[in-house]
Amino acid sequence: MIAEIISIGDELLIGQVINTNASWMGELLNRNGINVKQIKAIADDKTAIFEAINASINSVDLILLTGGLGPTKDDITKHTLCEYFDTKLVFNDDAFARIKKIFRFRNFEVTDVNKAQAELPESCMPIINSNGTASGMWFEKNGKVLVSMPGVPFEMKPMMENEIIPLIKSKYKTPIILHKTIMTQGVGESFLAKKIEDWEDSLPSNIKLAYLPQPGIVRLRLSAIGDNSEKCEKYIAELVEKLKLLIGDIIFGYDDILLEEAVGQSLKLHQKTVATAESCTGGYIAHLFTSIAGSSDYYKGSSVTYANEIKEKMLDVSKYDIEKEGAVSETVVKQMALGALQKFGTDYAIATSGIAGPDGGTLEKPIGTTWIAIAGSDGIIAEKHHFGEHRGRNIRRASLTALFMLKKVVEGITSLQ
Amino acid sequence: MIAEIISIGDELLIGQVINTNASWMGELLNRNGINVKQIKAIADDKTAIFEAINASINSVDLILLTGGLGPTKDDITKHTLCEYFDTKLVFNDDAFARIKKIFRFRNFEVTDVNKAQAELPESCMPIINSNGTASGMWFEKNGKVLVSMPGVPFEMKPMMENEIIPLIKSKYKTPIILHKTIMTQGVGESFLAKKIEDWEDSLPSNIKLAYLPQPGIVRLRLSAIGDNSEKCEKYIAELVEKLKLLIGDIIFGYDDILLEEAVGQSLKLHQKTVATAESCTGGYIAHLFTSIAGSSDYYKGSSVTYANEIKEKMLDVSKYDIEKEGAVSETVVKQMALGALQKFGTDYAIATSGIAGPDGGTLEKPIGTTWIAIAGSDGIIAEKHHFGEHRGRNIRRASLTALFMLKKVVEGITSLQ
Repeated sequence: MIAEIISIGDELLIGQVINTNASWMGELLNRNGINVKQIKAIADDKTAIFEAINASINSVDLILLTGGLGPTKDDITKHTLCEYFDTKLVFNDDAFARIKKIFRFRNFEVTDVNKAQAELPESCMPIINSNGTASGMWFEKNGKVLVSMPGVPFEMKPMMENEIIPLIKSKYKTPIILHKTIMTQGVGESFLAKKIEDWEDSLPSNIKLAYLPQPGIVRLRLSAIGDNSEKCEKYIAELVEKLKLLIGDIIFGYDDILLEEAVGQSLKLHQKTVATAESCTGGYIAHLFTSIAGSSDYYKGSSVTYANEIKEKMLDVSKYDIEKEGAVSETVVKQMALGALQKFGTDYAIATSGIAGPDGGTLEKPIGTTWIAIAGSDGIIAEKHHFGEHRGRNIRRASLTALFMLKKVVEGITSLQ
Repeated sequence: MIAEIISIGDELLIGQVINTNASWMGELLNRNGINVKQIKAIADDKTAIFEAINASINSVDLILLTGGLGPTKDDITKHTLCEYFDTKLVFNDDAFARIKKIFRFRNFEVTDVNKAQAELPESCMPIINSNGTASGMWFEKNGKVLVSMPGVPFEMKPMMENEIIPLIKSKYKTPIILHKTIMTQGVGESFLAKKIEDWEDSLPSNIKLAYLPQPGIVRLRLSAIGDNSEKCEKYIAELVEKLKLLIGDIIFGYDDILLEEAVGQSLKLHQKTVATAESCTGGYIAHLFTSIAGSSDYYKGSSVTYANEIKEKMLDVSKYDIEKEGAVSETVVKQMALGALQKFGTDYAIATSGIAGPDGGTLEKPIGTTWIAIAGSDGIIAEKHHFGEHRGRNIRRASLTALFMLKKVVEGITSLQ
């Protein structure tokens, strides 16, 4: 099955918004055995939408449109599709019920513009949007499918995953593609490639490998293509086992699990609790922990001690040591971790202190220098890392590194002594 | 002048790489008065390149191609363009001199594949690549221009800025486009549209308005097209003034400033400091503050008191009140803010307590119920909000709402009494 993605929105053409939707969809489609032939970004305008559909409808089986479905005047897709498919808008009671529910929940009155969102083209099959007021629309004509979705990522993504992909799979035959994603942390893409070079060269022709780097994390995606699902699974399992022998120490999980979720699972399993004392990471580790539902079972809180006097006051760090060794030092980061362990009364505590940048670097402690400590009842360990020059990425890398250190401690892979 | 961007590369279609090149180019072209009609991403393959050019060459004046010019086998653009423009490759001495210089600088021998990069289509004008071995190519045919560039961002960007844009400007007349982005927080897209309906209806035809929503924030982008830059600026300034009368209370800044940056600027200007006491936002406000370089000037830290006993211990919240009123209550959130004010010794303190979800909601306090308090030496205020059902978005919306509340307090728009 061959697909095209058409992203509608002037903001994409003038570079105000980067088209991350299309990449996300491309990845999802590819993973489901659907070949993306082309991605197009076009203007929020009737002629452009008509032209884009006409230019592609004969060379693909499926067109996925996003954008232009909001309630405001600059949104035009629905009317254009009505004209294109020679149909008319009809009021859809189910869609209106969902809109009302969303508004009731937010304690707002339904406005006329929102009510108008319940009007949908007669010839389409509406697609449920669980996160917003604009329904998706599934059109079929001459054996081709066109699906229109909102451009808001958190509305589009669940629609793609929960509604559209299952619909495609139920209606069309797609080849069997099995994927296994290996989540790694701590080693950059090119070094990782070097480490697994021989393994990669030995991959059989029906197995594909993709490197999917994110800041601080590299996902390795193995895809097996075939007509026998069990065989594919066996192939992949064997390859993962071999890979674990090479890079087992940097694998924190599989299949797109978040590191913060994996750590949370370990803490839950071992019935342990944790608190954080954050300087350079500035609350980002706390945010990662608490972004996972149910984290209150194991995460108790954080002292974000951005200022030195707060490190003294809140975590009993020695003023003398801060002056003598500097806040970015093994001594101070260990005192922070011990302070947090005692104040929060948890089984473990994480502490970070580093120079996130862009200022504050010295010859001896350049930007990116970061100390991380993990304390527990058995003892304490600290590691010094050198990340990069970019503030945001330093914060993220320091936080992920700290979480992974904790995971290994909780699981007994690293000892605190 | 109307342009199309064609990005060549399989990695774009399977979502392995996000097409940031095209956004960057779109922004640059738009800023220079060149209208981008369409952005396309296509496969690294001769047929796809032919089809993409043929589909667009009649409807645009300029096609900008990136990608497929490297020395490896999967790069195919140059040969395809030779065929398309019915020309042949000739060895270019200047291009070879630049390749040799780059290799000398890197201390490498020039290989045959790299020497082959000095072979360029006879009918094109080569474009200098100061950062790599693949020259750009400028073709003209029947009044249309096609430019091919490498896809490596640090090679493409200087080529665009230093060679291609000046060439276009010297050869073609381009109009003036001015943009102004108005940043708003606290009101959803549809309500905002309702509020500014009459203003929007009165916009002259040379002014375009776009709603650009993000979780918790809506950006309004005004674009003025004309031939006189002063006039365009005056138009936009007048429209913004009128808009301020309508929705001044939800505007936190202009031109893509982040709310956390705008609050930081206010604190700096008024020489005030702040700390946070976070329950439901779980450190996200701390993270937003500390993601801004230089925030240590005004941000002192956070007590992320996720567990109730930690609220008591770290912020002196009354155990009795937590039991009586619940942690998500005006009484508790105010005690948290006052606790943080006292513990951190800052001018202001923000506190949050709410039910982020997906669990923990009750009939009386459904998921999304959030109390936010701001304390200062003049007094304390607290607001109750109802956000949505989605944990991540609740955390973000609560944090942004709290930051904006603080900004208004710091600027004297809201009184603490």
